[in-house]
Amino acid sequence: MKQTHSGGSGRGELALLGEIRRRAASAAGRYRNGGLRLSIGDDCALLAPRRGEELAITTDLSIAGQHFHLNWHQPEAVGHRVLARGLSDLAAMGARPVAAFLSLGLPRELTVPTGRRAGVRAESHSWVQRFLDGLLALAEVHSTSLAGGDLAEASVAVADIVLVGAVPRGRARLRSGAKQGDLLYVTGALGGAAAGLACLEDLAKAKPGRLDPPRIPKKLEARLAPHLYPQPRIAQGLCLQRRGVASAAIDLSDGISSDLAHICEESGVAAEVDASALPIHPGATLAQALHGGEDYELLFTAPATAKLPRAIAGVKITKIGRIIKARAGRPTLTLISAKGAKPLEPHGWEHFA
Amino acid sequence: MKQTHSGGSGRGELALLGEIRRRAASAAGRYRNGGLRLSIGDDCALLAPRRGEELAITTDLSIAGQHFHLNWHQPEAVGHRVLARGLSDLAAMGARPVAAFLSLGLPRELTVPTGRRAGVRAESHSWVQRFLDGLLALAEVHSTSLAGGDLAEASVAVADIVLVGAVPRGRARLRSGAKQGDLLYVTGALGGAAAGLACLEDLAKAKPGRLDPPRIPKKLEARLAPHLYPQPRIAQGLCLQRRGVASAAIDLSDGISSDLAHICEESGVAAEVDASALPIHPGATLAQALHGGEDYELLFTAPATAKLPRAIAGVKITKIGRIIKARAGRPTLTLISAKGAKPLEPHGWEHFA
Repeated sequence: MKQTHSGGSGRGELALLGEIRRRAASAAGRYRNGGLRLSIGDDCALLAPRRGEELAITTDLSIAGQHFHLNWHQPEAVGHRVLARGLSDLAAMGARPVAAFLSLGLPRELTVPTGRRAGVRAESHSWVQRFLDGLLALAEVHSTSLAGGDLAEASVAVADIVLVGAVPRGRARLRSGAKQGDLLYVTGALGGAAAGLACLEDLAKAKPGRLDPPRIPKKLEARLAPHLYPQPRIAQGLCLQRRGVASAAIDLSDGISSDLAHICEESGVAAEVDASALPIHPGATLAQALHGGEDYELLFTAPATAKLPRAIAGVKITKIGRIIKARAGRPTLTLISAKGAKPLEPHGWEHFA
Repeated sequence: MKQTHSGGSGRGELALLGEIRRRAASAAGRYRNGGLRLSIGDDCALLAPRRGEELAITTDLSIAGQHFHLNWHQPEAVGHRVLARGLSDLAAMGARPVAAFLSLGLPRELTVPTGRRAGVRAESHSWVQRFLDGLLALAEVHSTSLAGGDLAEASVAVADIVLVGAVPRGRARLRSGAKQGDLLYVTGALGGAAAGLACLEDLAKAKPGRLDPPRIPKKLEARLAPHLYPQPRIAQGLCLQRRGVASAAIDLSDGISSDLAHICEESGVAAEVDASALPIHPGATLAQALHGGEDYELLFTAPATAKLPRAIAGVKITKIGRIIKARAGRPTLTLISAKGAKPLEPHGWEHFA
């Protein structure tokens, strides 16, 4: 955050920056993840990695109408999801989160308390304050400081999140390390995010409101949670990194059919997935588990000789297939089921397609 | 950049990412700025700072209609300006650029060769390719690798640039180091960007076209250059850092009247500016020099005993005022001219104001 006036009663850029700075500083004081020497309030933040560590850096752009919908998602869920996307990339590499940077472009109405907007229920907090509530709550879970960013008015809400993590030098898990004979694993369950999204879409259609997303009925909370509040697998990624057992990893942002193809392409291998082994989330379909995306589970490979725990920090680890040799004319991904083997084509989201 | 298919003839997200990856990789091979261990193609990039260095990190969000205009600015100038904003923050801190990350949200039409769009002159390159031409040309000047980012479809063009620089530990120049008695300096000339913008606006109004900015007549190129192609003062920032003479610094993105106020606020001091000493750009007004912004020159303070060169790498250094004690009831900034002293109020841009 470049500007630093501490605010006053106005709700301009400087007041909003002042509020973000205060909230971020109050949280940062509680984290002992180290490395952050200078935070919001100067031209840059300063980070000094610990000896023997290197930094992992990732950016993820979220845009209203593409990655979230103002009339579907409560602002807290948008903030959570924005940060979860970035944290999940660190989890895949086996990095410990250190700091986040947030660039926010917002229509002016999202900075005004909703009680003052016409046609929506009165609330004393603005959309952006509630967005920050969601983002900072997840940041606190993972001891991640909000160390900087930028703020601008925009005709559409956009949030670019930058995550900086630390990992012992040479120990980051890459997409390129999978080898023929390795086995294929996932954390948690698959398809829950896609199933939750379908359910949310139904709710929103039943009660359309431009800036007023549906309240989630108590009985649907569990079903919607994998979509609204995905849990980045930081603890699992760190545990795998410390044990040194995984040969390659990626986070499931676009769905197995897309993300496994990335591992195969970068590693120069092919893969078989056992349909019957997939840990499909209750209420989800096989297609949602394969192509749905946004589950933010980890997909990783490990040598057949590696010993893997059944669960890490309460999250199940499931063997779902194997890495095989890539052969010209043979599909990169094959899905094996009781009906036989068939090619598994990517059906994940592609922008501009 | 998270996705990695190397493309083909399609112009979807994966093809565009493939092109960016190829261009970035070909450039990165030529840079010896060190530290970047893994670039585009995995979940994160990996950076290992040199021993004794820390990292400076900054993000800057640019949005069509706010920071640039599709019908005013050639795409190459937009790309240049997006990167210049980030580099300029590193210059202020005295950091050496290492890597950039770019998150791009684009309307689909900006990814299609303009020759195929109706109503504009035929060209074989898309808007985004020409944007990258401008961005990567400036990156090359400053040996900065494009190390990652994200890409998404959006209803409005947005570009968030993240810059990572390296600086010897404890040697970064902060906004907070100015002391009573320090003198105030700027690099280069002031107001040229605002004067150039006014000239560009006139040109664009004379020849309106939604996605077809005016060609710049040869005789106006020099006048428009400070706005279209600002030069971040990396060499000057590094030289000041190595000499250890500056006590505080900021880059002039919002104009002296705003940016000097930030130094004063963070340092707990006040300042006087001598109007007659200001190095006003030929063709610019005093108001443009004080409030115009986007000059991306460095504003810095140094003890009165410090010896400063008249120029660094061909760019003039000018003494423009002094740091004084902050007193309650007295304005933070004072402008001193032949007519006497008067308060200098910030008139820089503020979003949501």
